[in-house]
Amino acid sequence: MAIYKDDRVTLSPEDIPKKWYNIAGDLPVPIPPPLNPATNQPSKPEDLEAIFPKGVIAQEMSTERYIDIPEEVRDAYMMLCRPSPLQRARRLEKFLKTPAKIYFKREDLSPAGSHKPNSAIPQTYMNMKEGVENLTTETGAGQWGSALALSCAHFDMKCTVFMVRVSYDQKPFRRLIMETYGSKVHASPSKETAYGRQVLQENPDHPGTLGIAISEAIELCLEQPNTKYSLGSVLNHVMLHQTVIGQEVKQQLEQIDTVPDYMIACVGGGSNFAGFTFPMIGDKIKGKNETEFLAVEPASVPSMTKGELRYDFGDTKGMTPLLKMYTLGHDFVPSSIHAGGLRYHGMAPAVSKVAELGYVTPISYEQSETFEAAVTFARVEGIIPAPESSHAIKAAIDKALEAKKTNEEKTIVFNLSGHGLLDMGGYGKYLHGDMNNTH
Amino acid sequence: MAIYKDDRVTLSPEDIPKKWYNIAGDLPVPIPPPLNPATNQPSKPEDLEAIFPKGVIAQEMSTERYIDIPEEVRDAYMMLCRPSPLQRARRLEKFLKTPAKIYFKREDLSPAGSHKPNSAIPQTYMNMKEGVENLTTETGAGQWGSALALSCAHFDMKCTVFMVRVSYDQKPFRRLIMETYGSKVHASPSKETAYGRQVLQENPDHPGTLGIAISEAIELCLEQPNTKYSLGSVLNHVMLHQTVIGQEVKQQLEQIDTVPDYMIACVGGGSNFAGFTFPMIGDKIKGKNETEFLAVEPASVPSMTKGELRYDFGDTKGMTPLLKMYTLGHDFVPSSIHAGGLRYHGMAPAVSKVAELGYVTPISYEQSETFEAAVTFARVEGIIPAPESSHAIKAAIDKALEAKKTNEEKTIVFNLSGHGLLDMGGYGKYLHGDMNNTH
Repeated sequence: MAIYKDDRVTLSPEDIPKKWYNIAGDLPVPIPPPLNPATNQPSKPEDLEAIFPKGVIAQEMSTERYIDIPEEVRDAYMMLCRPSPLQRARRLEKFLKTPAKIYFKREDLSPAGSHKPNSAIPQTYMNMKEGVENLTTETGAGQWGSALALSCAHFDMKCTVFMVRVSYDQKPFRRLIMETYGSKVHASPSKETAYGRQVLQENPDHPGTLGIAISEAIELCLEQPNTKYSLGSVLNHVMLHQTVIGQEVKQQLEQIDTVPDYMIACVGGGSNFAGFTFPMIGDKIKGKNETEFLAVEPASVPSMTKGELRYDFGDTKGMTPLLKMYTLGHDFVPSSIHAGGLRYHGMAPAVSKVAELGYVTPISYEQSETFEAAVTFARVEGIIPAPESSHAIKAAIDKALEAKKTNEEKTIVFNLSGHGLLDMGGYGKYLHGDMNNTH
Repeated sequence: MAIYKDDRVTLSPEDIPKKWYNIAGDLPVPIPPPLNPATNQPSKPEDLEAIFPKGVIAQEMSTERYIDIPEEVRDAYMMLCRPSPLQRARRLEKFLKTPAKIYFKREDLSPAGSHKPNSAIPQTYMNMKEGVENLTTETGAGQWGSALALSCAHFDMKCTVFMVRVSYDQKPFRRLIMETYGSKVHASPSKETAYGRQVLQENPDHPGTLGIAISEAIELCLEQPNTKYSLGSVLNHVMLHQTVIGQEVKQQLEQIDTVPDYMIACVGGGSNFAGFTFPMIGDKIKGKNETEFLAVEPASVPSMTKGELRYDFGDTKGMTPLLKMYTLGHDFVPSSIHAGGLRYHGMAPAVSKVAELGYVTPISYEQSETFEAAVTFARVEGIIPAPESSHAIKAAIDKALEAKKTNEEKTIVFNLSGHGLLDMGGYGKYLHGDMNNTH
């Protein structure tokens, strides 16, 4: 088997994008703004200043199509091994006996093991520039928390992470990763906040949810001096930062003269999906491609396939503004699936709007189906994927098998949002027959 | 901070070396051959055919300076993200306030998380070509076992791994990684072999050693039909395969017009050290550089700094040929340090010969010193290193601090042989003050 030019499409460090892409600059209608729950009026920048630095708020509300990436952020991106390769899954194609071409973007190669640092780094940078000393955040599976911990070490800031309790227990190594980077980690619901203590009183065995962890992180942020909050998904500025992925993918696809039939990514809050697809969706809005964009979610957390599109809180207690999004309700407690990063009741307003306009096809799979796809991918391509990313792999495999049926040389590109080396507990349960569709 | 040309030096997939470098072709004296313990005469190829395929034996005994890398192996190397980048540790330099330039080779980026697949792949390939169906092996920390499991999945072969018991317990995820790739894993000493049962009878709580695990793997290989054995270090063919690392480093250093003052790697059995340094040591033998080559080992497993250079068994029971190497004695039981891959009583005969001839400077450090260096590296460069690689990092930091004292712009290049994401248990103990120098 010779080495072909599109087996691994790479870019140089100098090619790290110089701008993020803001889809708000291309949508025919605005992304619905967050609403202040006290007034039901759009949140003003001042409403958000208690938790976010001004630079982040400006990005959150911007409708500029392109926003400069500061040089210090590009430099940190380079440390994270950006640009990441676009790799051909030649063995998977051969294994499936499909005429389809399958490519995947290697967001698993960052030191944190996922795409999350792409936003953690600029958020931390902007906080640092404004003299903030501490950041608080929530994390599910631990990938966001690890990324923020890495970024805070990089910019010499303190960090406190509230980690969803069931993931804190399932994934002990992620907590230790955050501590190695110098952060403090609490299992949520925790005794550190009034809200955490309230939840524990009602149910001492509460497994936790991202919604509750967000509430705790915001409460601590409001109490502690010189502290801001950092969110790993959902909001516009996070989607914006993540488009470094999709901007690179565009360059890489142009290098091999390829336009995908399908672009596929998993969805929890929407950050890797948006980052990966928005530049190409922006092109589609302008009539430049016919690509179909698949957003893949767990069947047990079906915000896009079964949720309602309405204003809802981003967290469980009701401390965030109201966001217009596909939601299962902010009280929704997802089952204890191993894809912890996808256990979120809502969906980014930007992703929700793009889906509402008809540019996104949502799909859902049960947990066992995704682990089956993951093990196949590991044995055939050699990379053990994150349980979250395995949702995208499953969909990519299904599209490749469809193409086999119809004998069409479709081009399928998915985002490998992370590796699964810290999720081996889940793999262990699957391999030993201990897995069902809820835990 | 702008992005500089040497911040990350990359090569294209087409630049994956086409040949391995065999230092036996350049040494002024032969590497001492293995001895058949029954006759005390050099092992004949036929002696080794029970455990190795002919292709491996031929490589083991070759004195050809260059040996072709088969296309199927280069193709698999590409899947492993070869060529790996050579990265500048600019932040570490800044943190240490040193005038030295520090570079590191990213062997942590393979899906198995270390340099080990560089030999696992060609060994599995050669076995497959000769119709072998099963491979047995031993593993300490699990990095070799994971690499062989990955390779056996790649070439569709079965694999049984004997994992040193203390590492099996300390690092549960590595076992699950091997199982995800489709291999079978036993904690060694195990009940699967007569020797294992014998060891357990004498000491039911034996923590295991690489030496014992090798004995078990060889015993099973000899019993089971159509089965060969695969070794992760020590022997010449493994050193040979690993020179894909050093060959790339040579190209990368030429790209940035740099000759290192120091090349540094950790040593357990010698595989990453040899792979990383042999091409440049070969040049030094020919008078082409003045680089100093540092081999860094744990103070609690000091084969090079305190061992004897003599013929000794490669395993504990005495099933392997006798190898001329720096050794602590094949009965040596290393303390339960977290750098499991370095818990080996001996040293590759090729590395031992090169050291005997004066081309290697051995250094040792205590476990806590290496974890201190590791945490510094993680917080400053963002990558959590393997405990094994942290020995090299500690030495690199020390050389950088020396250069600071003497105000010399030394160039230091070390091999980041693996990441530490599966070793977070060790980091946890260090961070919580539970670590000493033996466990």
